[in-house]
Amino acid sequence: MSEIKNLIQKLGSLNYGKMYNNDFFLTWEKTDEELQAVFTVADILREMRKDNISTKIFDSGLGISVFRDNSTRTRFSFASACNLLGLEVQDLDESKSQIAHGETVRETANMISFMAEVIGIRDDMFIGKGNKYMHDVSDAVKQGYEDGVLQQRPSLVNLQCDIDHPTQCMADLLHIIHHFGGVENLKGKKMAMTWAYSPSYGKPLSVPQGIVGLMTRMGMEVSLAHPEGYDLMPQVESVARKNAELSGGKFVKTSSMKEAFENADIVYPKSWASFTAMEKRTNLYGEGKFDEIKILEKELLAQNAKHKDWECTEDMMKLTKNGKALYMHCLPADISGVSCKEGEVEASVFDRYRDPLYKQAGYKPYIIAAMILLSKVKSPVNIFDKLLKEKTPRFLGK
Amino acid sequence: MSEIKNLIQKLGSLNYGKMYNNDFFLTWEKTDEELQAVFTVADILREMRKDNISTKIFDSGLGISVFRDNSTRTRFSFASACNLLGLEVQDLDESKSQIAHGETVRETANMISFMAEVIGIRDDMFIGKGNKYMHDVSDAVKQGYEDGVLQQRPSLVNLQCDIDHPTQCMADLLHIIHHFGGVENLKGKKMAMTWAYSPSYGKPLSVPQGIVGLMTRMGMEVSLAHPEGYDLMPQVESVARKNAELSGGKFVKTSSMKEAFENADIVYPKSWASFTAMEKRTNLYGEGKFDEIKILEKELLAQNAKHKDWECTEDMMKLTKNGKALYMHCLPADISGVSCKEGEVEASVFDRYRDPLYKQAGYKPYIIAAMILLSKVKSPVNIFDKLLKEKTPRFLGK
Amino acid sequence: MSEIKNLIQKLGSLNYGKMYNNDFFLTWEKTDEELQAVFTVADILREMRKDNISTKIFDSGLGISVFRDNSTRTRFSFASACNLLGLEVQDLDESKSQIAHGETVRETANMISFMAEVIGIRDDMFIGKGNKYMHDVSDAVKQGYEDGVLQQRPSLVNLQCDIDHPTQCMADLLHIIHHFGGVENLKGKKMAMTWAYSPSYGKPLSVPQGIVGLMTRMGMEVSLAHPEGYDLMPQVESVARKNAELSGGKFVKTSSMKEAFENADIVYPKSWASFTAMEKRTNLYGEGKFDEIKILEKELLAQNAKHKDWECTEDMMKLTKNGKALYMHCLPADISGVSCKEGEVEASVFDRYRDPLYKQAGYKPYIIAAMILLSKVKSPVNIFDKLLKEKTPRFLGK
Repeated sequence: MSEIKNLIQKLGSLNYGKMYNNDFFLTWEKTDEELQAVFTVADILREMRKDNISTKIFDSGLGISVFRDNSTRTRFSFASACNLLGLEVQDLDESKSQIAHGETVRETANMISFMAEVIGIRDDMFIGKGNKYMHDVSDAVKQGYEDGVLQQRPSLVNLQCDIDHPTQCMADLLHIIHHFGGVENLKGKKMAMTWAYSPSYGKPLSVPQGIVGLMTRMGMEVSLAHPEGYDLMPQVESVARKNAELSGGKFVKTSSMKEAFENADIVYPKSWASFTAMEKRTNLYGEGKFDEIKILEKELLAQNAKHKDWECTEDMMKLTKNGKALYMHCLPADISGVSCKEGEVEASVFDRYRDPLYKQAGYKPYIIAAMILLSKVKSPVNIFDKLLKEKTPRFLGK
Repeated sequence: MSEIKNLIQKLGSLNYGKMYNNDFFLTWEKTDEELQAVFTVADILREMRKDNISTKIFDSGLGISVFRDNSTRTRFSFASACNLLGLEVQDLDESKSQIAHGETVRETANMISFMAEVIGIRDDMFIGKGNKYMHDVSDAVKQGYEDGVLQQRPSLVNLQCDIDHPTQCMADLLHIIHHFGGVENLKGKKMAMTWAYSPSYGKPLSVPQGIVGLMTRMGMEVSLAHPEGYDLMPQVESVARKNAELSGGKFVKTSSMKEAFENADIVYPKSWASFTAMEKRTNLYGEGKFDEIKILEKELLAQNAKHKDWECTEDMMKLTKNGKALYMHCLPADISGVSCKEGEVEASVFDRYRDPLYKQAGYKPYIIAAMILLSKVKSPVNIFDKLLKEKTPRFLGK
Repeated sequence: MSEIKNLIQKLGSLNYGKMYNNDFFLTWEKTDEELQAVFTVADILREMRKDNISTKIFDSGLGISVFRDNSTRTRFSFASACNLLGLEVQDLDESKSQIAHGETVRETANMISFMAEVIGIRDDMFIGKGNKYMHDVSDAVKQGYEDGVLQQRPSLVNLQCDIDHPTQCMADLLHIIHHFGGVENLKGKKMAMTWAYSPSYGKPLSVPQGIVGLMTRMGMEVSLAHPEGYDLMPQVESVARKNAELSGGKFVKTSSMKEAFENADIVYPKSWASFTAMEKRTNLYGEGKFDEIKILEKELLAQNAKHKDWECTEDMMKLTKNGKALYMHCLPADISGVSCKEGEVEASVFDRYRDPLYKQAGYKPYIIAAMILLSKVKSPVNIFDKLLKEKTPRFLGK
């Protein structure tokens, strides 16, 4: 309980006023204190739930989800976050909807939002599209609110776009903060964000991009490693460079996985498709050239296959700080000999880190709930004081 | 707040007792005061939500939805309405259900209703089927209730059948009432319900039918215009004629879009398939003659294409009262040059009316919630007094 | 109200402590008093709902459902049960989830469970698989809880596996208990669990197995009848034999439907596939031999067709105690001349028992809610006392 009070006090000292009635697209669009506010609220919500204190701030209201790509973790995290705050999830299943006729995004966005408090969107498959779509939806409902069409302005939470995966990376960072005992302990730590081999094709860039865009703000040395041809979007690398400068950290690029692992405190080996390949694919898709997409995919898989040595093995782990770096992954990982013949990570490494990996994932519902809460509640400190005073039990039977 | 009290007082003066423990199939099965009660309750719920007053009258309970045709607006409206009252939506996805073996409607209806307070159904594709199916479901659960199988009698809300689309048309009318500043101002107004060209085939008849069946009760002059061969169901036209007589309004039929638009206060140009074509299609479907259906569809599209001049253009709008009639549509509209090459409405007309169109759609959740509430609550006035006295906030953070 | 108090008092006298933080897989893994506790809690919940008393013990929290086979009744029962207790259902639709890559059950189970209180699973299609899968999920989340990954341990409810269908059979038994006016009146009653002809193939064994495994505990004479080749799993028959011995009942096997019906107080005629056929099919499936599966299915249908005389006709019913045995079915039944040409039961028999059949089904939501409650609440008696004292109305409008 005293921990919760400390967290609330900390929240009171932060400046995050602009998050109110606002969206969460990319972490680098937020100030350091705004990110701190998300972490603090996430921790408050987690501690309150642990202490069986209800955090239901909505008596009714919808949380809309739009998944344009498959999802388990994020889907359940969004559902959990909404439920924790009292919102009911309504999924927009575009296949069951009457959104034909070239209906505009503006119209659909308003039509589903009459009682929506938040809209969570995953749209990560096509370069230049996902983030754009989220902005279109946000602009539409913002205007709907201003024009009196909507009673409230639904805020948008990016559940993974072509550029960033903020709910994932923020959960990752909160995990790191707890692991190292506080954000102040991250300064000078080395983190390796490295490509890893996977037999599957076309994993989004949003996780590695989100990681280098976020972790460089913590005064860490972020080492980005990948084989030639697996570049990230140039603008995100530029963000990472600037962040590192400002935070007193470093952003280093290398084409050697070993170099990145060398003395690292944290490693995040994960497969992705190259930006240029994804861009080519997006264009072919736009032109309806599906045969050429198939050819491209084969080429890319062949290209991947040249780098099977990019695997997070026990030997690689030995290169890290005391051989004990924190191994991270957004899951599901391609585990060699388990989920595929050859993959991103050796089974024994994955097994050893299973618990921290699952805990890492467990922060996501709270991160999303915190993003929602900060966008909806004008005075979070007051709300938390009230919840703490009322102490409505989340579960009567405890 | 005083507005809410006025509305509650108004509700108290109306006679709507028969709506309790009853269904909502067709607007013309309801008395004028019953429709007034729906509008009044919808307005109360909307104002209460605006004032952040909880209208959650159910602590638990299900709202069942059955969508036998695609839906976005109505699906989200039903979900919003249920959520606003405290019901959780459970969708009967017939593809995922074990409803094979020629299971009877009677059985399925009871099996899904043990904790159901309301069942919302969309079944609009086949003439003579949708409304019938809804009655079968209603009869089944009514009997289940009487036989002690069900603890409560789930009431049925027609979310669009082959005959009427009452939640749409009631939302449309509430929009008109607010637009013209009160139901008493509708007398003598001219409304044009006209066919419009669409490149797509087989839009249901329920909207135009629902509109002429409802608007003729308001003392308005309702002008129904369509090209030859696009007749509505004869029994609905007959309803419209009788309504007009009783209300002191008019029901006029014409085959000229211009004639209908001339001096109109409200225009509702919208495509539909002809009753006879839909009936033919229903029969072919019943006989399993899918090849003949395809041929029929082609014929009908060719027939449609002869009437591309039935478009709501700027020039057409100039014919209306001061060139400023209220343009209406149930959405999504086929907008020329936007959602199709040639469609129901010119883009500049649609754009100018976007706000009122979206507001029109925004009444639907409240209309549905009002229909549910009036069917479930024996003494709505008492309930509203109680909610107003308790003033539980819908959202703690406001 | 006094009835509820009596039930709570009865509950207080039972020993069911081991159900707390535990799962419900098979009825024969539970003690008699534990089963009594489920019935008692189910009755309390039903009476409280009847008296409009809220039983919402959760303010937030998820109930996860995983349906690996179609379901209507059980799906809606699970949703109803969760809703009654305050949990929101989140369905794991494996087709929309990112569970590829050979992701382990252990991982998925944890990823969906961060805020899950209960997981309900149907997995009944393959012999040796369904129950195993449920245990894997349960083990995974138990370990997740112990390792600090999960704040709570989600309990598992078997919504039908390859061995048992406990929520069905417990609902069936509660129906019988109420029908005969108390569990003490079941001693010596004769129940016929018989195979019946169906034109469809491959119905699971879980219902007949669950029935003989459960009813033999009530001191009843359970007569299992089926044509040659339709044996149940040997280990379940062995359970039934032992149960009968212990309870002072009987477990009799016969290959004559008539013999089973003779003087029976209860008849449960229902089609199923034979254990050996299901096992063969499971193996072929595992080997990917889909052509051979088709051949097998044809053979089995041909085998079925030899036993069309296994039908619950009016003549058969005349053989039962005073011609008035309680006819039971888990629904949907194959009704001759209604849902198929020739089926499990004559239409007039089914019609006469429609009400009791629907009531039988109506116990399932309460049985599931009772299973959830007993697994989550440490002191159910205290909780019920509290709910009874607070008397929060489930529905304000009553």
